[in-house]
Amino acid sequence: MAAVDPKESALRQALAEKQAAVDAQAAAVRELKSAKSADQAAIDAAVEALKAVKLEKASIEEQLQAMIKSNGNDTAASREAFRQSVINTLERRLFYIPSFKIYRGVAGLYDYGPPGCAVKANVLAFWRQHFVLEENMLEVDCPCVTPEIVLKASGHVEKFTDLMVKDEKTGTCYRADHLLKDFCKDKLEKDLSLSAEKAAELKHILAVLDDLSAEELGAKIKEYGITAPDTKNPLSDPYPFNLMFQTSIGPSGLSPGYMRPETAQGIFVNFKDLYYYNGNKLPFAAAQIGQAFRNEISPRQGLLRVREFTLAEIEHFVDPQDKSHPKFTDVAQLEFLMFPRELQVSGQSAQKMILGEAVGKGIVNNETLGYFIGRVYLFLTSLGIDKDRLRFRQHLANEMAHYAADCWDAEIECSYGWIECVGIADRSAYDLRAHTEKSGVALVAHEKFAEPKEVEKVVITPVKKELGLAFKGSQKMVVEALEAMDEKEAMEMKANLESKGEAEFYVCTLGKNVTITNKMVTITKEKKKEHQRVFTPSVIEPSFGIGRIIYCLYEHSFYTRPSKAGDEQLNVFCFPPLVAPIKCTVFPLVQNQQYEEVAKRIAKALTAAGISYKIDITAQLVSTLLWRYPSVEDMGGREGGTSIGKRYARTDELGVPFAITVDSTTSVTVRERDSKQQIRVNIDEVASVVKEVTDGQSTWADMLWKYPTHSSASADD
Amino acid sequence: MAAVDPKESALRQALAEKQAAVDAQAAAVRELKSAKSADQAAIDAAVEALKAVKLEKASIEEQLQAMIKSNGNDTAASREAFRQSVINTLERRLFYIPSFKIYRGVAGLYDYGPPGCAVKANVLAFWRQHFVLEENMLEVDCPCVTPEIVLKASGHVEKFTDLMVKDEKTGTCYRADHLLKDFCKDKLEKDLSLSAEKAAELKHILAVLDDLSAEELGAKIKEYGITAPDTKNPLSDPYPFNLMFQTSIGPSGLSPGYMRPETAQGIFVNFKDLYYYNGNKLPFAAAQIGQAFRNEISPRQGLLRVREFTLAEIEHFVDPQDKSHPKFTDVAQLEFLMFPRELQVSGQSAQKMILGEAVGKGIVNNETLGYFIGRVYLFLTSLGIDKDRLRFRQHLANEMAHYAADCWDAEIECSYGWIECVGIADRSAYDLRAHTEKSGVALVAHEKFAEPKEVEKVVITPVKKELGLAFKGSQKMVVEALEAMDEKEAMEMKANLESKGEAEFYVCTLGKNVTITNKMVTITKEKKKEHQRVFTPSVIEPSFGIGRIIYCLYEHSFYTRPSKAGDEQLNVFCFPPLVAPIKCTVFPLVQNQQYEEVAKRIAKALTAAGISYKIDITAQLVSTLLWRYPSVEDMGGREGGTSIGKRYARTDELGVPFAITVDSTTSVTVRERDSKQQIRVNIDEVASVVKEVTDGQSTWADMLWKYPTHSSASADD
Repeated sequence: MAAVDPKESALRQALAEKQAAVDAQAAAVRELKSAKSADQAAIDAAVEALKAVKLEKASIEEQLQAMIKSNGNDTAASREAFRQSVINTLERRLFYIPSFKIYRGVAGLYDYGPPGCAVKANVLAFWRQHFVLEENMLEVDCPCVTPEIVLKASGHVEKFTDLMVKDEKTGTCYRADHLLKDFCKDKLEKDLSLSAEKAAELKHILAVLDDLSAEELGAKIKEYGITAPDTKNPLSDPYPFNLMFQTSIGPSGLSPGYMRPETAQGIFVNFKDLYYYNGNKLPFAAAQIGQAFRNEISPRQGLLRVREFTLAEIEHFVDPQDKSHPKFTDVAQLEFLMFPRELQVSGQSAQKMILGEAVGKGIVNNETLGYFIGRVYLFLTSLGIDKDRLRFRQHLANEMAHYAADCWDAEIECSYGWIECVGIADRSAYDLRAHTEKSGVALVAHEKFAEPKEVEKVVITPVKKELGLAFKGSQKMVVEALEAMDEKEAMEMKANLESKGEAEFYVCTLGKNVTITNKMVTITKEKKKEHQRVFTPSVIEPSFGIGRIIYCLYEHSFYTRPSKAGDEQLNVFCFPPLVAPIKCTVFPLVQNQQYEEVAKRIAKALTAAGISYKIDITAQLVSTLLWRYPSVEDMGGREGGTSIGKRYARTDELGVPFAITVDSTTSVTVRERDSKQQIRVNIDEVASVVKEVTDGQSTWADMLWKYPTHSSASADD
Repeated sequence: MAAVDPKESALRQALAEKQAAVDAQAAAVRELKSAKSADQAAIDAAVEALKAVKLEKASIEEQLQAMIKSNGNDTAASREAFRQSVINTLERRLFYIPSFKIYRGVAGLYDYGPPGCAVKANVLAFWRQHFVLEENMLEVDCPCVTPEIVLKASGHVEKFTDLMVKDEKTGTCYRADHLLKDFCKDKLEKDLSLSAEKAAELKHILAVLDDLSAEELGAKIKEYGITAPDTKNPLSDPYPFNLMFQTSIGPSGLSPGYMRPETAQGIFVNFKDLYYYNGNKLPFAAAQIGQAFRNEISPRQGLLRVREFTLAEIEHFVDPQDKSHPKFTDVAQLEFLMFPRELQVSGQSAQKMILGEAVGKGIVNNETLGYFIGRVYLFLTSLGIDKDRLRFRQHLANEMAHYAADCWDAEIECSYGWIECVGIADRSAYDLRAHTEKSGVALVAHEKFAEPKEVEKVVITPVKKELGLAFKGSQKMVVEALEAMDEKEAMEMKANLESKGEAEFYVCTLGKNVTITNKMVTITKEKKKEHQRVFTPSVIEPSFGIGRIIYCLYEHSFYTRPSKAGDEQLNVFCFPPLVAPIKCTVFPLVQNQQYEEVAKRIAKALTAAGISYKIDITAQLVSTLLWRYPSVEDMGGREGGTSIGKRYARTDELGVPFAITVDSTTSVTVRERDSKQQIRVNIDEVASVVKEVTDGQSTWADMLWKYPTHSSASADD
């Protein structure tokens, strides 16, 4: 990933050489000029030569600049411009609003306005349909306020941190890795005199940024002389800042709590009840949709990195000895972009792979993990995520927690780059073990054997009398420590006792070694009949950042097209009906009582069909309609006269897929947003036609074939 | 409300008199016994008389006890028993789970388990349908984390408190009003020797408990010698404890924030954008569903008083000069229990009223408020709330905030008493004004006049030169204060200046009075033309405690009936299909491949019809089915042999309204939960039949009429 382009390296080398040539020639010119003996012709020739070599250097500089741009920054400006159009439209139409705007807002907090709220509700409803209902998952709903003990067990109290530095004079806080990243990027983009070696070093830092320790980050910040961006003051050493919002539960001030950083813990702590609810059988999955919180040091990237967000998480509990999935064949034929760690390490790109093959070859660790990767792919593409800008990237070994068996992120490409939107991890037994240990409640599963199985087990029998004589008051601790030995330890001790007659033994509750003799304990292997296997289930966790998915969906759905007059660019969100905040609009072509009555009849039929719509009856227009579109010239009752093209443009900008225009008392025109094609449908049929295409039972193409197409005054171009 | 029952009062009086008679007679007996002259007969007679009067006293005691019980406590025991059955069923079937149970939980925090989560999702979906979509409301979704300035403006930082007392030795915290309430109730119930006056006093305290100041509460606690319930230690004076969970936003520790105590503030701060989105027109409503937080001092009443809960709130913005509602006629004919403040004050009960009349007579302040009361009634009764245990109680004058125009609570009666579940308040312009003042952003509406209107306005012109001479450096403050006078103040000053030549004037920025002479300011009335009216809208706020509504719904839906054998009581939740966590079940009557295939075909048809169901194919039974019902005897694959009656009983307990039993390859049996009636329906029709009855297009009675009824092996009794 950090591989330095050899061409770029060669150019930097050439540039350095040419710079040396310029310096040498300039020195020569200066020498000639200062030498009294030199004639003008020689001076002129040397100056010409300097000019020439400067031109050559400029040419190399230009090539290098172009290369840096094309290495990831070529489209930076156009990406930025695209993002601005999307964001402007989103903010203007209140898809989102910076929270508490009248108080100058709070970084990293955003509201969903009316259309954004509807999109979010649609995405969550589909998530529930696609995962919870389809897979018979057990959905739960736990509080955000979480007592400290739960998050100590999960490791969040200790490890959910980012490294922070402070401006030593003003106290302003920065993320240490952000400062170093900005420094490296800036150098690489703007400092052309950078040597190839230095460039490679900076690129390497960017590649390993996430893995740097506080000490390493601090050393680099010192080495490069990085200062506070706003004041240029010196910075403190990096230190960890816990990203959880802390609070206190109850009035005593003695019960610390946190706003949950993820919803998963609420499921883990309920494992026992859920397992019981499921008839004490594995596998089963539990799911939860809810708010999570992350007190970012300095939020960036707009809607992508926020301090409060909606997560939708699944914890699929499975026997670690059998991670097959009965429905894997349903997704095995899917083919999409995958980015296994081997491709990443060798500097290659993501490749299209068939999921079944990826699992078959062991690229994906197991069928259940593979099944969820496939289901996530189907989920995202159904929402309207572009499959060519969606990839599943495997975590590198150093990215994964030590306990994880495998982990893949669904990454979606948007103007900010490739963004992790869903994490799909096989977390093995880590979480259940952690809570078992902390709570003392065994979060385990049982497999009853059809017939009892014979197993060989180590039996440790301390001889209490001897131990009492030897250790007196400490006897109990020694006995407990002996009994707690695992099989390996016990067999080692047995070997020592047999060969040497005694063994050194560390008793942690005493904090020291003691000597155990062969009179003090007997260790044997015995055959026992077991009726069941008791084990901690593994958990496979697909975790969805709903806000990130929605933002990427906005970018993937957005396009512009010229207005009819060609004088402006009109914005369109091409949301599929599933996601669209409103499924259709109804309006009479002209102000006319008959048409209005028809519009109301259609509206009633749409309600009965369960289709969300907006009706625009001019008389009530301004208070009830869809295109609450607040550009100043439209105010003051002038909307009755708004051209049909403008009306369509406004609904296109909200992503409304279908528009019904009442232009007769028997049939109406139905217009599709993206093709702008129109069909004529009988008034009594129109609600069911819209229902069919929005429910996905038919396509627009089916309708074009079934109904007469139409072009008339109600067309927008 | 605090009226003491005159009969009870008379009984207490009689009891006190009888006690005096007992004491007197006992004294007489003692005297006789100690007197040497008394003969045995006289003593015996006196003892008999004592016995008689004691018996009379006991009889009065019994009557009083019975009366106390019937005054609200008669059914206490049966209520408690009923609640226990409901709660046991809810916990056993995981409708809810105490949060973080394996860590011994946190008071006031509960999880929704799988069926509870489904009920909640259904209630919220219906809320969205009934309010947001039906009324074209603007739904928003704002963060829970809220900066302090917002909650300072709203008054929560200062006033969102409960009075707390601390055990002076252990530091344990209690709600002061709870302790006083418990003391009074306990005395009234158990201390029969209480005088009628004392009883009246304690009842009065219970009635005015919410209005007592910290000082008054503290005085009563001292007067009655109330100590810490657990330790009997003395208590501190009551002091306010803020109920918001506090946190800190960002890493600096300098930006205090709180977890929002309500969702409403997120709407108010967005008023300007939402008004603009609505085409700058009133009225319109915004809505929000989300989590809210309340750090209760000592949560009681189980699911009713919790520290984190889901609110659904509507803020309907309206011109204060016109609170009519165009759709009021839709609800005007509704008749239900209302409890206006006059009835409360005069000690009467709630009465059935026709909503239109209540608004017409001015009992309800305005049409819009009345409209929402009617819509809330329809919402709650559609969910299954019993209309006879639902009343709308008007706030008493002392309960309402000073700014509120009127306020009604939808109260639902459950085993805990009458519980406030929805508040419907006309909050006038309070909230928007508060945020306008704090933020400096005018949250106002405009009404453009068709023609400019002539209005008379006061014009205040300070004479700066004179003011400068008189007040030097303070001139600016005086000028500003003069200009800020309202019409009334200005006209008073004008009168004083004209009569006395000078006026005393308080300048708040200087903190003192100054003397203004008639040279320093001119005050005139001038006619001006105005093109628009600028005003702060009033807001009418229906606010729904979703968890409370759901809990009351559980109680109203729960009943028991004997099993077929009559040996046990079976639990049923008679949820309407709208609310039911699962709409129907499908299972083959016997293990049989043909039947299983039919069951799968029906399941597919149900999916296509959008009906949530659970299918129970015996082979896969334990891992996929509905009655994940973990009673021990059912485990271990024996479920295949479970009787049909037991299967029904399990689904009844989850409130599943319909069960499809496959008992032939052409038609099936459909059983309705509450009547246990069955009909035979063709396999190809069954999905649409279930859809019709669950969507409410047909009733079960319609189906009974349309399809043959059935009684067979698949009947449960």
